[in-house]
Amino acid sequence: MKKPKWVVEKEQAKRKAAAQTVWLFGLHAVRDALANPAREKLRLVVTQNAFNKLESDIAAAGIEPELVDPRKFNVPIDPQSVHQGAALEVKPLEWGSVRDVCLGAGEGAPLVVLLDRVTDPHNVGAILRSAEVFGAEAVIATARNSAPETGALAKTASGALERQPYLKVRNLADTITELQQMGFLVFGLDGEAEQTLDGALEGCAGRAVALVCGAEGPGLREKTKETVDALVKIPFARDFGSLNVSNAAAVALYAAAKR
Amino acid sequence: MKKPKWVVEKEQAKRKAAAQTVWLFGLHAVRDALANPAREKLRLVVTQNAFNKLESDIAAAGIEPELVDPRKFNVPIDPQSVHQGAALEVKPLEWGSVRDVCLGAGEGAPLVVLLDRVTDPHNVGAILRSAEVFGAEAVIATARNSAPETGALAKTASGALERQPYLKVRNLADTITELQQMGFLVFGLDGEAEQTLDGALEGCAGRAVALVCGAEGPGLREKTKETVDALVKIPFARDFGSLNVSNAAAVALYAAAKR
Repeated sequence: MKKPKWVVEKEQAKRKAAAQTVWLFGLHAVRDALANPAREKLRLVVTQNAFNKLESDIAAAGIEPELVDPRKFNVPIDPQSVHQGAALEVKPLEWGSVRDVCLGAGEGAPLVVLLDRVTDPHNVGAILRSAEVFGAEAVIATARNSAPETGALAKTASGALERQPYLKVRNLADTITELQQMGFLVFGLDGEAEQTLDGALEGCAGRAVALVCGAEGPGLREKTKETVDALVKIPFARDFGSLNVSNAAAVALYAAAKR
Repeated sequence: MKKPKWVVEKEQAKRKAAAQTVWLFGLHAVRDALANPAREKLRLVVTQNAFNKLESDIAAAGIEPELVDPRKFNVPIDPQSVHQGAALEVKPLEWGSVRDVCLGAGEGAPLVVLLDRVTDPHNVGAILRSAEVFGAEAVIATARNSAPETGALAKTASGALERQPYLKVRNLADTITELQQMGFLVFGLDGEAEQTLDGALEGCAGRAVALVCGAEGPGLREKTKETVDALVKIPFARDFGSLNVSNAAAVALYAAAKR
């Protein structure tokens, strides 16, 4: 019997995901990934100079490095990348389900960030850093229209990519609903909102909170706006200008972490 | 009589500053600069396509555009730059003295950001955006070891470079002392500080406040630490990780703007 089309497609997507690998680069990002036992490491390409700096990390990770001449550093990364003579091919990390990750370890009320089409790797890297610093359980984005776990993202995340859960979901509105069913209050950041973030967070002590950030310019999608519990704004002193999305996320995380 | 060496050097520095120009690029940055009457505009290079989009702005600014073929877009900017067919050579803006700019327009207590060796144009651009949003009087950096007003900075600042005073001073510690004499309380952001930012801001209602951010990694210089009124930290939920400097500045500005 022929398999139904959706089964075939699902299997293809699974195989594609399994085949997907990422090249991390730069001494800091490579060292963090080497030190992460959960990270599946495939190939390590280093110059002699980088090898000398990473020697103990490489030994501890138990991976066989490929030593190359600096002039022949031939790995598939953007030629503009500041790789510092070190590149590591890895699999994306498996963090588990939204339910398992977002309920938190028990200390304090859970805090989660959702990204609605934020695709710039520098912004997402900075958001992962802030999420880690302010103790968020996870950063959640859609599998499509999100920043992939590239080397540039890892570099901006400055180690947080290895430690801060970054989950990909199929449909953001469905995930918002799932979080609501788990007891989360979900706030969408929107410069046009009536209510302020601080006002909304009053009385949220002890409550699980999720913050949704949209792409700069278009902001949150209509479906996202309809699904969240409330739209909230960061109070602005002036009428023009807007925050960079990673700065808005940092402010919102700070305010929510204090609740 | 021969001029003393310091007079010659001062005159040379003045001539150099007068000769200094910056190429802004990208439709957004060029449009903002064209719309700014305080901005001295020298040359505008545009493709036909960009001209069509900027036509009314160019007419209002009264500058004669140089129309070029997109394949011959030959201006001295980084070839990787996303210029969108528009580049404008300008003079850096003259904002005036620390005293004149920082005392504020009278609505609310003044708020100022100082940058101690923050040189990344993307970070400084994002900080100018946040400073504008949270109503800061100025962002102040040293003439040396700061991010110059480049096209990349203007693009990240998303218009704020034209509206948000960005002052350059010779010596940051002297400027901190000057601000203190003007009545400012000056706080240095330092992850190792004992006191939290919120704790320090309590009881600061109505007071002029300045926030000093250091470069990622090295942080504030010793001389800066000795000169500020207090070192404060943004409270972190976790023991490792740190905020990107523009995110730290955004959080501090938000907290201070609410005082």
